[in-house]
Amino acid sequence: MKHGGDLTQAMAEFGGAADEWLDLSTGINPWPWPIRKLPDSAWQRLPSRADEQALLAAARAAYRVPEAAGIVAAPGTQALIQLLPRLAVDGAVAIVGPTYNEHSAAWSDAGHAIAAIKDLSELPAHVTHAVIVNPNNPDGRVTDPDRLVEVAAVLQRRGGWLVIDEAFADVDAHISAVASCGKLPIVILRSFGKFYGLAGIRLGFAIGTPDVVNGIRHVLGPWAVSGPALSIGARALNDAPWAMQTRVRLAAQVIKLDGILLNAGFEVVGGTSLYRLARHPEAAALHRRLAQKYIWCRSFDWSREMLRFGLPHDAEALDRLAAALAP
Amino acid sequence: MKHGGDLTQAMAEFGGAADEWLDLSTGINPWPWPIRKLPDSAWQRLPSRADEQALLAAARAAYRVPEAAGIVAAPGTQALIQLLPRLAVDGAVAIVGPTYNEHSAAWSDAGHAIAAIKDLSELPAHVTHAVIVNPNNPDGRVTDPDRLVEVAAVLQRRGGWLVIDEAFADVDAHISAVASCGKLPIVILRSFGKFYGLAGIRLGFAIGTPDVVNGIRHVLGPWAVSGPALSIGARALNDAPWAMQTRVRLAAQVIKLDGILLNAGFEVVGGTSLYRLARHPEAAALHRRLAQKYIWCRSFDWSREMLRFGLPHDAEALDRLAAALAP
Repeated sequence: MKHGGDLTQAMAEFGGAADEWLDLSTGINPWPWPIRKLPDSAWQRLPSRADEQALLAAARAAYRVPEAAGIVAAPGTQALIQLLPRLAVDGAVAIVGPTYNEHSAAWSDAGHAIAAIKDLSELPAHVTHAVIVNPNNPDGRVTDPDRLVEVAAVLQRRGGWLVIDEAFADVDAHISAVASCGKLPIVILRSFGKFYGLAGIRLGFAIGTPDVVNGIRHVLGPWAVSGPALSIGARALNDAPWAMQTRVRLAAQVIKLDGILLNAGFEVVGGTSLYRLARHPEAAALHRRLAQKYIWCRSFDWSREMLRFGLPHDAEALDRLAAALAP
Repeated sequence: MKHGGDLTQAMAEFGGAADEWLDLSTGINPWPWPIRKLPDSAWQRLPSRADEQALLAAARAAYRVPEAAGIVAAPGTQALIQLLPRLAVDGAVAIVGPTYNEHSAAWSDAGHAIAAIKDLSELPAHVTHAVIVNPNNPDGRVTDPDRLVEVAAVLQRRGGWLVIDEAFADVDAHISAVASCGKLPIVILRSFGKFYGLAGIRLGFAIGTPDVVNGIRHVLGPWAVSGPALSIGARALNDAPWAMQTRVRLAAQVIKLDGILLNAGFEVVGGTSLYRLARHPEAAALHRRLAQKYIWCRSFDWSREMLRFGLPHDAEALDRLAAALAP
């Protein structure tokens, strides 16, 4: 499968209705920030500049964006992934992988040659840009901020960008390289939907030097983000207590997931508290067995031994996974 | 002002809180389609292909898209306006105006020379593309479908496109040129938010030949439209009785608006049942007088005598406008 989170393919192949499936194919927090009531105006009128400014102020505080850096909101990080390679200067791009496959697709589409590398230390001399997902999806590897700054400085001399996709960085406030934004040619992508459990609203951010951010804003045009996303995003990003409690709650739940995977003979090789990457010699057969029991996890075309599991949302879901994996 | 629908500027200049203002600066239906309850999954999970297919099926039926044509959904028509000039082959574009100013900005930005024309009959020999808003915003002028087909055939020989922005075409099912899509290089834009009164959700469509539509879909990437927009759009576009009643209701209300404008000495020079364009020798002073009474209508940089009024939503709002315009 190409992406997590779409049961359409799973249901076509294995049957069942959407509500019969336990979907563990994504890295989306299963306990969403509580939306409660939205003002009617969020649906009915065009989003205003004041709405957008309120969202960006909340995002600046939540992500600790330095004053020297700019920030722009988009209808999902994916929209930014599509757009960045078209705004970047010509030149090859190194992509640290295996990782989320849309980066490579978008840069290739925009005419950049791709150099697939395993670690930033292997940065080829001919590349102008680099892309890293940090923490990485699916293996959760975290790259040291000092190393990121070093690479950004190298790319600055080549006139290029270091794109850091921090889609899963909310789980630990120490991971982000945002403090270095604004001085160096670093473009950070932040995804709202994953940590806040609201992937359907489509909200993401790019943080970078003011000229890069203004270029993105210009190409996105006015009213890029929906009224509900502006309203929910501003309130949720201002809710620091919820974020803190959620970090703790996710960390506790993923330990329970680890226990189930270890009991079933998996080796847990990485991940974040929103998903785990696990190795098993019979991974392909287990993926199929789980699907026959309407449990959907993520498999990969680059390994037959790896599966990625999102967080089961309650004790019943944990038990269901454990039972399905029992020999 | 550059756009309607943003009270931020009005409040900065004239004071008042958002809920004290009567906002007549947009062409958005003041009686939105009733959303009622949304499934939690629309917020929480990534939109699925099945969700998108359901929306597109509803849009095909509502807009009467012929089988030979393709259709793609975007997070608002504005996103499509930004994107189309970047996908179009090089060459100058004729834009029929005065009209919605974002078309010219986007084509110019993408490097196309602009020829501003007053009527499609003036199509210059050197242009490759043409853009027309039909019915036009702000004057409501409707161009005959046969004329549109003629021009599309001319542009086909030049390898170009005829872009028809049908943002306000829902008010009359006979206006659309959609029947000619698929055969000729016509790209039609449809806006969901205006007629359905839900501009905040960001939903628009492009209809055209399958290759053009697939090119747009590819550049937009996955999950371009939010879960709430997919769910609401599919249900609303399937609600033919609501659309029929709304056409009648808008037509009745705009007659009341006309009466108020005529009484106040305006000449109503055009519009649709979602807005009226009206001329008054003292338009600039009246715009200011209305703003001081927290009524916001639209003025234009190309005429000091023209104002555009959206629909007041009830009798009280009609009376308030009438009183504010009384000498």
